[in-house]
Amino acid sequence: MYKLFLDIFDGILKNLITKNLNMGETMSDLKAMNELNEAFANRKDQLYKQKEEGRKVFGLFCSFVPIELILAANGIPVGLCGGKDTTIPAAEEDLPRNLCPLIKSSYGFKKTKSCPYFEAADIVIGETTCDGKKKMFELMEKMIPMHVMHLPHFRDERSAKLWLDEVKDLKKMIEEITGNEITEEKLKEAIDKVNKMRKLFYKIYKLRAKTPTPIKGTEALRLFQLAYLLDIDTLIPILEKLVKELEEKVEKGEGYEGKRILISGCPMVAGNTKIVDIIEEVGGVVVGEESCTGTRQFENLVEGYDLEKLAERYFKIPCACIFKNDNRIKRIKELVKELNADGVVYYTLQYCHTFNVEGARVEEELKKEGIPIIRIETDYSESDKEQLKTRLEAFIEMI
Amino acid sequence: MYKLFLDIFDGILKNLITKNLNMGETMSDLKAMNELNEAFANRKDQLYKQKEEGRKVFGLFCSFVPIELILAANGIPVGLCGGKDTTIPAAEEDLPRNLCPLIKSSYGFKKTKSCPYFEAADIVIGETTCDGKKKMFELMEKMIPMHVMHLPHFRDERSAKLWLDEVKDLKKMIEEITGNEITEEKLKEAIDKVNKMRKLFYKIYKLRAKTPTPIKGTEALRLFQLAYLLDIDTLIPILEKLVKELEEKVEKGEGYEGKRILISGCPMVAGNTKIVDIIEEVGGVVVGEESCTGTRQFENLVEGYDLEKLAERYFKIPCACIFKNDNRIKRIKELVKELNADGVVYYTLQYCHTFNVEGARVEEELKKEGIPIIRIETDYSESDKEQLKTRLEAFIEMI
Repeated sequence: MYKLFLDIFDGILKNLITKNLNMGETMSDLKAMNELNEAFANRKDQLYKQKEEGRKVFGLFCSFVPIELILAANGIPVGLCGGKDTTIPAAEEDLPRNLCPLIKSSYGFKKTKSCPYFEAADIVIGETTCDGKKKMFELMEKMIPMHVMHLPHFRDERSAKLWLDEVKDLKKMIEEITGNEITEEKLKEAIDKVNKMRKLFYKIYKLRAKTPTPIKGTEALRLFQLAYLLDIDTLIPILEKLVKELEEKVEKGEGYEGKRILISGCPMVAGNTKIVDIIEEVGGVVVGEESCTGTRQFENLVEGYDLEKLAERYFKIPCACIFKNDNRIKRIKELVKELNADGVVYYTLQYCHTFNVEGARVEEELKKEGIPIIRIETDYSESDKEQLKTRLEAFIEMI
Repeated sequence: MYKLFLDIFDGILKNLITKNLNMGETMSDLKAMNELNEAFANRKDQLYKQKEEGRKVFGLFCSFVPIELILAANGIPVGLCGGKDTTIPAAEEDLPRNLCPLIKSSYGFKKTKSCPYFEAADIVIGETTCDGKKKMFELMEKMIPMHVMHLPHFRDERSAKLWLDEVKDLKKMIEEITGNEITEEKLKEAIDKVNKMRKLFYKIYKLRAKTPTPIKGTEALRLFQLAYLLDIDTLIPILEKLVKELEEKVEKGEGYEGKRILISGCPMVAGNTKIVDIIEEVGGVVVGEESCTGTRQFENLVEGYDLEKLAERYFKIPCACIFKNDNRIKRIKELVKELNADGVVYYTLQYCHTFNVEGARVEEELKKEGIPIIRIETDYSESDKEQLKTRLEAFIEMI
């Protein structure tokens, strides 16, 4: 069945994919980054080979989905495309224009069948993080099987209970799709593996805190973006090499200097590098990302081997979709100190109400502590690039 | 304490209120409507008198709050202002421009202290219906005490359980604020009273189904808008008179003819009559509102006298904030038939993701049944009025 699909896919859609999924590969002075790019170049073939071996593919939108459960069932978690504006016109035939570019782009990728990860997915796992995604899923469901997790608004005890039940449902669904039981042993193994990955990301973050910082923001972003797409068993050895290389650079005092910027806000998924590109063009150097392509991707380990502990770790992710998300604001302030950042670029995707409104509170809190902050709201288009450049240049000069 | 406030309020803010809260009172051929307008003119004084008598005022945003609990504790539920664009500039100092006008207007009314109901409120009850409101509440909380109810995204058993717990918390909070215990007897009395009001609204809806329809859409809208603001004991006798008058008109075959329109979508709170005004200007007659200022305000009775039944009634409200809100789509189709509507004007407030995205599904489903539908997205400004007029005129001619 999917063999047939593969042929169609390879035959007809190859051009579209190359066109839409151009993610700007360049040679790095870091060998590990070059390996990462190579792994990405091979990912599509690897994924389809894994499918041929009978493994099931779970497409993901968000860092709230406990990938440990997928891995424990020998499934493959893979991020979905949503970082390019090429697919937005197709999406706008069904979705309102006044909707965040990430949501429209994702929907458009599925609609135009131009994302290999969407096409490989046996099922897509969504979650009720924001109004736009929640309601978009109702339309997407007509194109691909979906399982939507109920992520509650609050962070109280009764919400934790509901979330744990949702994680239990997810486990059942994954076992059904894969036909594999998630045993205690398998779960422990998966938890250890994902924790190992998280610890490596932590190490990289600590190395980025040094002056000069050993890796450019554009490369770090690429790392976080591709981490969602790659096989974890491919990724971990690359991260290990990268840690080593960065340690060596730090030891030698090599790296990048400039105004040190912490980015905070909406995810920047593969294909979307707009704001980091601009910051580093105008003399800034991005040393951290308080983002789902950044800290929210790897902070907090799973501190035990049962479903309770697993659910707990994901429940803690400080996303702006949470009502009274004070932990996020606290964490941003800590990150500024830990990373020796000179200022914060608060990044909101256009029409993203949660991050946009929360931005007012973040700004107020940072200003109280004398931390410079600039708030940017933008989409995936090129139209505001010059204007953003001017604003960010002025901000970086000022701090 | 609030005596002092009253003086300040009456002295300094009277002008502001009159300016911002001009809700277009005109004489009606229906005596009950004139009584309604009179009751509204007196409402502010009545409310402050009730406060002086020691009763507590609960400001409400949304039809999800079980007002029976407030009434059972001898409290006063009152809707909050949010229908005028005059307060939006003040709101946009704190909130993003890309946010629904209702949210911005409400916030602006509180910020500029220009809504008597906000100023009278001892506490405001919010709920997590949408991203914009949820996050706005975090900022509003700095200006007024708030209690936010956790309204879950799903409509499954575990969400119903969570909602019931939230209703129980609300009861406790109301008892604390008022100092009055909500006894079984008091609750029963309140449930009966609110059900009585709902049944009267039902009767009015059935009368509007007749041809000619005995009341203009602009007047019906005013009724639903003011119902949120008036004291229920003042409202019920007015509704009874209105039912009688409308029955008489129907008997005599008096009323309004023209293309019969069902409005469906976002709430139109007091001050916002834009779309209904235009529809009736260009030859349509609005016969129903599938809206929180309309059916969602009064449909479904509380079918028992305990908290479970109370929570259940509110849990059923088919708001677009619900994931897989199929009941709403079903209900719209039924309403078209029940009200003999010729077409549906789907009304979305700008940047309201939930109603906007759900509009695609509503449109698809109605078109399948051959029901004409036009989708309108607008704000509170005058700028698109001529354009809307042209579009709605064409739609009404076409159907």
